Amino acid sequence: MSVFEPIHEELELVEERLRGVVSAEHSFPADPLTSLLDCGGKRIRPALVILASKFHACDAEKVLSLAASVELLHTATLVHDDLLDGSLLRRGNPTLNASLSTEAVILIGDYLFARAADLAASTKSVPIVTIFAQTLMTICSGELRQAFDDGDRLRSRDNYYQSIDSKTASLFAASAEAGGVLSGARTAMVDAFRAYGRNLGMAFQILDDILDFTGDEKELGKPIGSDLRQGLITLPLLLFLEMHPKADIGSAIRGGVPGREEKIQDLVGLVRNSAAIASAWDEAERFTVQSKEAAQSLPPNEYREVMLDLADHLLDRRR
Amino acid sequence: MSVFEPIHEELELVEERLRGVVSAEHSFPADPLTSLLDCGGKRIRPALVILASKFHACDAEKVLSLAASVELLHTATLVHDDLLDGSLLRRGNPTLNASLSTEAVILIGDYLFARAADLAASTKSVPIVTIFAQTLMTICSGELRQAFDDGDRLRSRDNYYQSIDSKTASLFAASAEAGGVLSGARTAMVDAFRAYGRNLGMAFQILDDILDFTGDEKELGKPIGSDLRQGLITLPLLLFLEMHPKADIGSAIRGGVPGREEKIQDLVGLVRNSAAIASAWDEAERFTVQSKEAAQSLPPNEYREVMLDLADHLLDRRR
Repeated sequence: MSVFEPIHEELELVEERLRGVVSAEHSFPADPLTSLLDCGGKRIRPALVILASKFHACDAEKVLSLAASVELLHTATLVHDDLLDGSLLRRGNPTLNASLSTEAVILIGDYLFARAADLAASTKSVPIVTIFAQTLMTICSGELRQAFDDGDRLRSRDNYYQSIDSKTASLFAASAEAGGVLSGARTAMVDAFRAYGRNLGMAFQILDDILDFTGDEKELGKPIGSDLRQGLITLPLLLFLEMHPKADIGSAIRGGVPGREEKIQDLVGLVRNSAAIASAWDEAERFTVQSKEAAQSLPPNEYREVMLDLADHLLDRRR
Repeated sequence: MSVFEPIHEELELVEERLRGVVSAEHSFPADPLTSLLDCGGKRIRPALVILASKFHACDAEKVLSLAASVELLHTATLVHDDLLDGSLLRRGNPTLNASLSTEAVILIGDYLFARAADLAASTKSVPIVTIFAQTLMTICSGELRQAFDDGDRLRSRDNYYQSIDSKTASLFAASAEAGGVLSGARTAMVDAFRAYGRNLGMAFQILDDILDFTGDEKELGKPIGSDLRQGLITLPLLLFLEMHPKADIGSAIRGGVPGREEKIQDLVGLVRNSAAIASAWDEAERFTVQSKEAAQSLPPNEYREVMLDLADHLLDRRR
């Protein structure tokens, strides 16, 4: 992303490390994993590590290891998630489970967790490893809560926010926090990094959930309505239901209902054209404002500017 | 196990920590996991941590956390293994995948990895966390090699030993090594702990592989011939094939072959009654002797005696 220009050299070095992880392992076909990592993502999590480390002089090698670690941890969760959801496309590319056995995909996910843990440990910092382990626990607990939830129970906003906090915001927060900790930042600054990351992560996930209703399938690289298809009630639908308490969505979110796909398309259309979308954008903006407030408390420099730009950039797709 | 009498108090405290891990998590039904942990195992890995820590004064709390960590890591690998193998029984109890969805089992395994990593990190020791992460990588790489191996390719002894080293001996070695490191043992002692653990683990896995041919189903708590049924060629069969190079085993180890179950039973009988079993016991004994040699290099005390007894105890089932 152009907003990352001031740290593009570091991000390229992170790419090299990520490629190294795949090519170092001869036990499995590297191609699907390489394409998963290559096609992949905006590298926001490694960027947060790098940006937060830039406020003090620190060991560049360790920063790169940590940045690669958080991206691998993220990739590991995607690998298992896609398997669990049965998703065949991610960012327009086939998922691992589209071409490999369940067994292979579970093991590759586990292996990526292990590599991520090893990279975190290579920072030789106990606080970093602790942040890593606790974030992994938060992510797993959140996934478990979701898996053992009643699939079609109407969720409250509180539940929704708790869920995206575990699933997404926790790793954003941990990435920024850990970058700060690694550079020796004091508590107040580390808290600001963490608050910036967390709020940015909340906004990021809300945006993702909005685009699942309003986005362009080609741009997204996956079908619209994916969350509904998995029985997942996200913020736009929650807000829609607050506005239309009598709307019957059961047949769209429950599996095995005849004509379900049509119901899903209908519901996506209803939500997309409702005031719920603008309202969800307002929520995303609220978190973005909070992330910028946290960043404003940091000493001014070009990296703080990138952090502020990144928060604004997230909302650009609204226009 | 009676051999662990001198450390039975510590082992009971480890049990408490393991139960705490399950009861602390309200996101999933605790019953199946509690029974998996309860019914479970001989706690050899936590015992190795405790024994190796006993040669110097050290922080008992950290030793217990590390001991619980290695057992949880082991349990996490069992959870994913049983799922991959489709095993419905372990030690006579239903596996998690016998009662829960694939999704739930993958997530519970991931969660246990996370808890294990967090317990390792709670020792606040970088070398311990590094040992933990690298052992996890070794285990995962081994599993991947096995998964992407030609299922029915005849394996060499070298491949077999490499495979059980990754799968089993690596965690035995790491447990003993980490216990020593945590207590501040010097390099030569740590090397001895590691060698003891590794050789014990090799003997342990060979014994397990022998019992899959010669054991009593009730005692084992799972059907005989499980490895063959998964297309896995272990030491007794390897030795049998060295003695009978023309034996045709393809129809017993390949899935989807008509009448396969009968072929498996026949092959199990052939191997069980062959000289391959005694030869496999000799191999196990060879590793046991090496583990005792490593233990003999340690200063004499009651914990060294337990380590020596444990190695002998493994071979007791031969008689």
